[in-house]
Amino acid sequence: MLTVNAYSATAANKPLGPATIQRRDLGPHDVLIEIKFCGICHSDIHHTRSEWGSAPYPIVPGHEIAGLVAQVGSKVTRHAVGDRVGVGCLVDSCGECTSCRKGEEQHCLKGSTLTYGSIGKDGQLTQGGYSTHIVVTEDFVLKIPEGIGLDAAAPLLCAGITTYAPLRHWGAGPGKKVAVVGLGGLGHMAVKLAHAMGAEVTVLSQSLNKKEDGLRLGADHYYATKDLETFKKLAGTFDLIVNTVSAKIDLDAYLSLLALDGALVNVGAPAQPLSVNVFSLILTRRSFAGSLIGGIRQTQEMLNFCARHRIGADIEVIPASKINEAYERVISSDVRYRFVIDAATLK
Amino acid sequence: MLTVNAYSATAANKPLGPATIQRRDLGPHDVLIEIKFCGICHSDIHHTRSEWGSAPYPIVPGHEIAGLVAQVGSKVTRHAVGDRVGVGCLVDSCGECTSCRKGEEQHCLKGSTLTYGSIGKDGQLTQGGYSTHIVVTEDFVLKIPEGIGLDAAAPLLCAGITTYAPLRHWGAGPGKKVAVVGLGGLGHMAVKLAHAMGAEVTVLSQSLNKKEDGLRLGADHYYATKDLETFKKLAGTFDLIVNTVSAKIDLDAYLSLLALDGALVNVGAPAQPLSVNVFSLILTRRSFAGSLIGGIRQTQEMLNFCARHRIGADIEVIPASKINEAYERVISSDVRYRFVIDAATLK
Repeated sequence: MLTVNAYSATAANKPLGPATIQRRDLGPHDVLIEIKFCGICHSDIHHTRSEWGSAPYPIVPGHEIAGLVAQVGSKVTRHAVGDRVGVGCLVDSCGECTSCRKGEEQHCLKGSTLTYGSIGKDGQLTQGGYSTHIVVTEDFVLKIPEGIGLDAAAPLLCAGITTYAPLRHWGAGPGKKVAVVGLGGLGHMAVKLAHAMGAEVTVLSQSLNKKEDGLRLGADHYYATKDLETFKKLAGTFDLIVNTVSAKIDLDAYLSLLALDGALVNVGAPAQPLSVNVFSLILTRRSFAGSLIGGIRQTQEMLNFCARHRIGADIEVIPASKINEAYERVISSDVRYRFVIDAATLK
Repeated sequence: MLTVNAYSATAANKPLGPATIQRRDLGPHDVLIEIKFCGICHSDIHHTRSEWGSAPYPIVPGHEIAGLVAQVGSKVTRHAVGDRVGVGCLVDSCGECTSCRKGEEQHCLKGSTLTYGSIGKDGQLTQGGYSTHIVVTEDFVLKIPEGIGLDAAAPLLCAGITTYAPLRHWGAGPGKKVAVVGLGGLGHMAVKLAHAMGAEVTVLSQSLNKKEDGLRLGADHYYATKDLETFKKLAGTFDLIVNTVSAKIDLDAYLSLLALDGALVNVGAPAQPLSVNVFSLILTRRSFAGSLIGGIRQTQEMLNFCARHRIGADIEVIPASKINEAYERVISSDVRYRFVIDAATLK
C-alpha cells in the first residue's frame, strides 16, 4: 500500500481539505501514475456535496487526471514508466457485457467503476485525482500524445470526451450546422472540437459577454438567448445542438431551432424534469437525446484528435489550497474555462 | 368543374352529413381518381372538430384514399386510366426546397398541401377522400400494387406510412427489438410491418384484452402496461419503441425500457406537454423523437413492401351513413382496427 497526499471532502457541507489516502499495491495489470494535474469538473462539486445522491465520505474527487507512469505491474504491456498518461471518469468495467465488448464501457451493463465514489473489483472505495498518485488497471489508462501540455490535457478526460462523443455520434462535420448552448467548461470544448471537425459552429449563450472568446475558440456565430429575436432568426437552422447547460431550459424553444432530422443532445443534466411538446418533435422528425462521456477507445481517439489539431482546454492552474475558492467560482461561472489543480501543491 | 358527392362537416360541433363539392378541371399533370374506399383516421376527427386548431368549414376529411384512375391530364405519364392508385395525407408541395428534393415532401419548407383543409396552388381549399372523386397532381398519386385489396390498402396511405417511416428510419429489422405502444389503427400496422421487417416485436398495451389479436398480427410478446411488473421486467430491452398513443404517458417509465442508443418515437401527439427527466436519456444515450408520415417515394416503397408481404390493414367496411357512429367508436377504441368507408354509398 502506498500512502499519498490528497484533498478530500469529509461531509456534504464542509470544505475540502488536505488528507492522506492509500493506493493499492500494484497487481500484474496495474499502472501507478504520478499525477501532475487534475481538472475541476462541475460534477466534482455535485458529488462532494451529495447533490446527486448521498456520497460516501471521506471522498477525494477528480476525474480529469494527467500525469506520468511511475511504475507498472508485471504483466502490463500497454504502458511504460515515464509515459504521459491520463485517466478519466472510469477506472474499470466488467469487460464482458455487450456494452463493454462494443467499447462503450461507460454503459457497462454491470455498472462501470467510476474514478471516485465507486466500489472497485477489490471491494474498496475508489478515490479520485485530487491526489499525487493513483493506481489504475492498464486498459483504463489513456495515452496523452505529445503536442498537448499535461495541464491543458487534463480536462479533456471529462469535458473533452463528454462533448466529443455526441459530436461524433450525431455526425458533426463539414456541411453540418452545430450549435453549442452555454460557453463554460464543456461548452468551450464543444466549440473547439466541432470547429476542428469542420462544422459551422454557433454559440447560444445567455448574453454576448463572452462573444469575443467564443469566436476566438472557433465559433462562426454567437447569439444571446435572452434576446428572443435569436429564436426567430435561427428557427429550423441546426443539425445538432449540444446543450451543456444543466439549468432548466425552454426545451420547445430550443427544439424549434433544429432542422429536419436535427437532434438536441443534453450533456448537462438538470435536476428537475423538463417539459416537451411532442409536436416540437413530430413536425420535423427531431430528437431530444442525452449523452454521457464516451468509452475508452473513443477517449483515446479524442486525445489523438486533439493532439492532431493542437487542442487543449483553456485553463487556470491553481494550487490545492484554492480548491474551495475555485468551487465557488465554478458555481458562479467565473472561470475561463477550466480550473486545473497542480498536484505538486498537494502537500 | 366536376360536382361530386361527399360527406362533410359544417361546424366543429355538428355531425358530418351528405354534401356535394366541386373538383377542379384536369390540368395537364392532373389525375382524376374514382375513389373506391377511404379510411377513417383519428386525425379526421381532430380536424373536423377543430381540436387541432380552427378548421375551415365545410370540410370534407379523409386522407386514406384508394381508387381507380378515371381520367388523366394531357401530360400525365405516370398513371393511366384503370390503374389502382392511392392518395395519402399530401397532394402537393413546392418541389424545390431541400426537403422536397430529398423526397421528404411532408417536411416541405414552404409547407406541403394537405389532402384536406389546406390551400392548394390554385388558391382553393383542398377537400379530402370522403367523396366519390378527387383530382390530384400525378406526382402525389401512389400506385397500389396487385395483391392488396383496395379496401385494405386505403389505411396504408396514412396509418401504414406513419408507422413504416419510423420503423425504417430507426432501423427495425432482424436482431432488433421493437416495442409498439398501443394496439389501435396505427399500432396494428406497426406490429405487422415491424414483424415483416424481421424485428422481434412486443406490444405494450394497457391491458391484455387484445393479446390474441396482437400475437396473430405478428407480435412475439404482449405485455400490459397497467401491470407495473412489466416495466421492471423489460427495463433496458428495446432498440426502438414506437408510441402510437396520443394520450399523455409516463415518458420516463417508457424511456427506461430502452437499451443503449434506443429511441422512443412518438407518432401520436398528445395535446399536453410531457415531462422528461434528462437523466433518463443521458445514462444510456437514449433519444425521444417524433415522426410524421413519410415522403411520396417512401410511401410507394411502403405500398410495395406491403404487397410483397401481403400486408393490408384489418378493416371494418362501413357505408357513409355510419361515419358519425364510427367516429364515436374510434374515440372509444371500439374498432379492429380501421374503419373504411365504401365510397359507393356516398349518394
